[in-house]
Amino acid sequence: MKTEVTEFDGPIAIDGVRLSAATAGIRSRSRNDVALVELIPSAQSAAVFTQNKFCAAPVIIARENIAVTQPRFLIFNSGNANAGTGKKGIGDARVVIDELARICGCSPTEILPFSTGVIGERLYPEKIVAVLPELATSLAADKWHAAATAIMTTDLVEKCSSLEIKIDGQSYRVSGIAKGSGMIHPNMATMLAFIATDANIHREHLQTLLAECVNQSFNRISVDGDTSTNDACVLASTGTASNESQLTPEHFHWPAIASGISKVFESLAKAIVRDGEGATKFVEIIVQSSNEQDSLAIATTVAQSPLVKTALFASDPNWGRILAAIGRSPVEFMAVHEISFWLNDYQIVKNGEPLDTYEESVAAAIMAETEIVLRISVGQGQAQARLWTCDLSYDYVRINAEYRS
Amino acid sequence: MKTEVTEFDGPIAIDGVRLSAATAGIRSRSRNDVALVELIPSAQSAAVFTQNKFCAAPVIIARENIAVTQPRFLIFNSGNANAGTGKKGIGDARVVIDELARICGCSPTEILPFSTGVIGERLYPEKIVAVLPELATSLAADKWHAAATAIMTTDLVEKCSSLEIKIDGQSYRVSGIAKGSGMIHPNMATMLAFIATDANIHREHLQTLLAECVNQSFNRISVDGDTSTNDACVLASTGTASNESQLTPEHFHWPAIASGISKVFESLAKAIVRDGEGATKFVEIIVQSSNEQDSLAIATTVAQSPLVKTALFASDPNWGRILAAIGRSPVEFMAVHEISFWLNDYQIVKNGEPLDTYEESVAAAIMAETEIVLRISVGQGQAQARLWTCDLSYDYVRINAEYRS
Repeated sequence: MKTEVTEFDGPIAIDGVRLSAATAGIRSRSRNDVALVELIPSAQSAAVFTQNKFCAAPVIIARENIAVTQPRFLIFNSGNANAGTGKKGIGDARVVIDELARICGCSPTEILPFSTGVIGERLYPEKIVAVLPELATSLAADKWHAAATAIMTTDLVEKCSSLEIKIDGQSYRVSGIAKGSGMIHPNMATMLAFIATDANIHREHLQTLLAECVNQSFNRISVDGDTSTNDACVLASTGTASNESQLTPEHFHWPAIASGISKVFESLAKAIVRDGEGATKFVEIIVQSSNEQDSLAIATTVAQSPLVKTALFASDPNWGRILAAIGRSPVEFMAVHEISFWLNDYQIVKNGEPLDTYEESVAAAIMAETEIVLRISVGQGQAQARLWTCDLSYDYVRINAEYRS
Repeated sequence: MKTEVTEFDGPIAIDGVRLSAATAGIRSRSRNDVALVELIPSAQSAAVFTQNKFCAAPVIIARENIAVTQPRFLIFNSGNANAGTGKKGIGDARVVIDELARICGCSPTEILPFSTGVIGERLYPEKIVAVLPELATSLAADKWHAAATAIMTTDLVEKCSSLEIKIDGQSYRVSGIAKGSGMIHPNMATMLAFIATDANIHREHLQTLLAECVNQSFNRISVDGDTSTNDACVLASTGTASNESQLTPEHFHWPAIASGISKVFESLAKAIVRDGEGATKFVEIIVQSSNEQDSLAIATTVAQSPLVKTALFASDPNWGRILAAIGRSPVEFMAVHEISFWLNDYQIVKNGEPLDTYEESVAAAIMAETEIVLRISVGQGQAQARLWTCDLSYDYVRINAEYRS
């Protein structure tokens, strides 16, 4: 079996998926702020949503709809999250969906709505309704980039990722878009993502695959520890790649396809961290301990520490702050004399004691890099958790203090 | 029974406690950075320490010493936390203690050491040892203020609180000092505190009282969610106020004395938040739900949210961020339609729905104040938790990015 994986700089089309974008002027008229995705009738979709109890109106509706039928259309807007808007918010979202269903000739339950932006303000759906005809008539297979741009909020760059997997001459394609920059934290991050593949995957396996992919990508990033009311991620399989019967995990093509899809998720997740509000550094935190839950708890505590994040911003090898964060991680038992840690490959602490060979200048040079790996090990355990985060800069405060102005 | 409580602007002397301060030049020679406290031989003391697993050398020693005997001396230094320094750090702390024991003619176990400052750097005890004679000879009852200043790190103001309780003509005094500004979070906050009373309280009851006071004061403040390696708080009872036998909770003076001591703790805790790194606002978060643990979990999540804190800094009534933080609180069950919240007395959300009467200008005026109460209620439950926090400003980032420079 010969497997070839090709990654692309820009997004590539997936047969069975068409997209469009338009300017509804929800917060400003300076750029596109709505996007429409159309899936062919045979497409299978799986979705995961925020675990925030105060979930937004579109999340409530999307959850209900995907439980009863397979989606034909996904409608996104930025500029307003339609969250914290109570029953009126549900009504506002339904105005958009009902009109879109009428225009496209489908059932309202076949439409999934997604919103992102300010929380707690009314959506006023008329602006979106006004551009629905334009969205419907301008659908095209090559508009991934336009859709990715339309869903941006405080994002500085649009996030797209695509790759092609060739297995013994059979080609499978995967493309994805995502938005997210602030309010980013494990358990979905403040983000929307849509990923599609032309591989023919049954819905049940698609849901499992989606959960696995999200768990190792969007659930492994942290910008500021806040999670949102609107997070949603959809994985669609159009099944247009071949005439084969549906793929299952037993199929010999499955490992390569699953790995390729997972790669697109990871690439989008990393892009979100790189574009973290005010971020100047990309930091990978790898923790090893006797169980994965502890490893993740330690990684999360370090990633969320404002003192660690400001030290990273300052390129200050103030590793005592890392030690302090490890020490307050919510794990049942931690033997301090078993803790070791490294900045990139440079070991600083071994078995709870700083190394005599430590040189501040070496650590400072590493901290000055824009990509840093922070590796922590507790004892001999090999259960690993990996997490991506960024630093905390003046610009994080500026962006979030000025967000609504 | 007539009870009178007098609060003082400056610290007042407690019979049986003498203090001194000096400049050891640990990080700079521009101000005092060591303080000594002497307790009369009959004094009883109780202490609580950080729960960070990576606790500092002085914490390890202080815990050991107070377990075997009652302290006669407390030695504090700022500028260096002697944390993350391994076995060498223990040795460095012992050099100071042994020399102080020799000078003062007591056992090293009768001395409790406290350090605060940069983590991960050697203490080099010679500087402190050099000023021990000066500290020992300059002890005086009126040097609370000087001691409070000597233990400051990034604190902008020294923190002292004193009051006198008169019950039917019998007078009891309480004085306390504290330091803390960043790395402040429930579970002690990055702080040192020493509180003394001349009330004659048995050690066992003193420890219970200390735990209760800390739980409603230093464990209820949050500046940045980080907790430190060095937190420690000592409550001493000199018993010099009267010739009575030791006070117990059954004594009819106890409620007033306990309340007075608790007030000094609360006052010091609030002073720490007001002086939070970069803080421009003082925010009280009050949450009511069916159980105190849930109430505290919600209050803590809101207090730690960078998005809420930057909105507070910007005086932006972006209450959707508060809603989002409530929604991601780690509580088992939360009925969204039972959530209500208020800025000061202005209700914004009732039973999960924003009020129709909401006016942004009213909320904006409240958010512009420097003291804000954020009240959240979930259902009919009356179990309340209260927490004090501050906003997240540019200066927080500046202070923590520049701390070592």
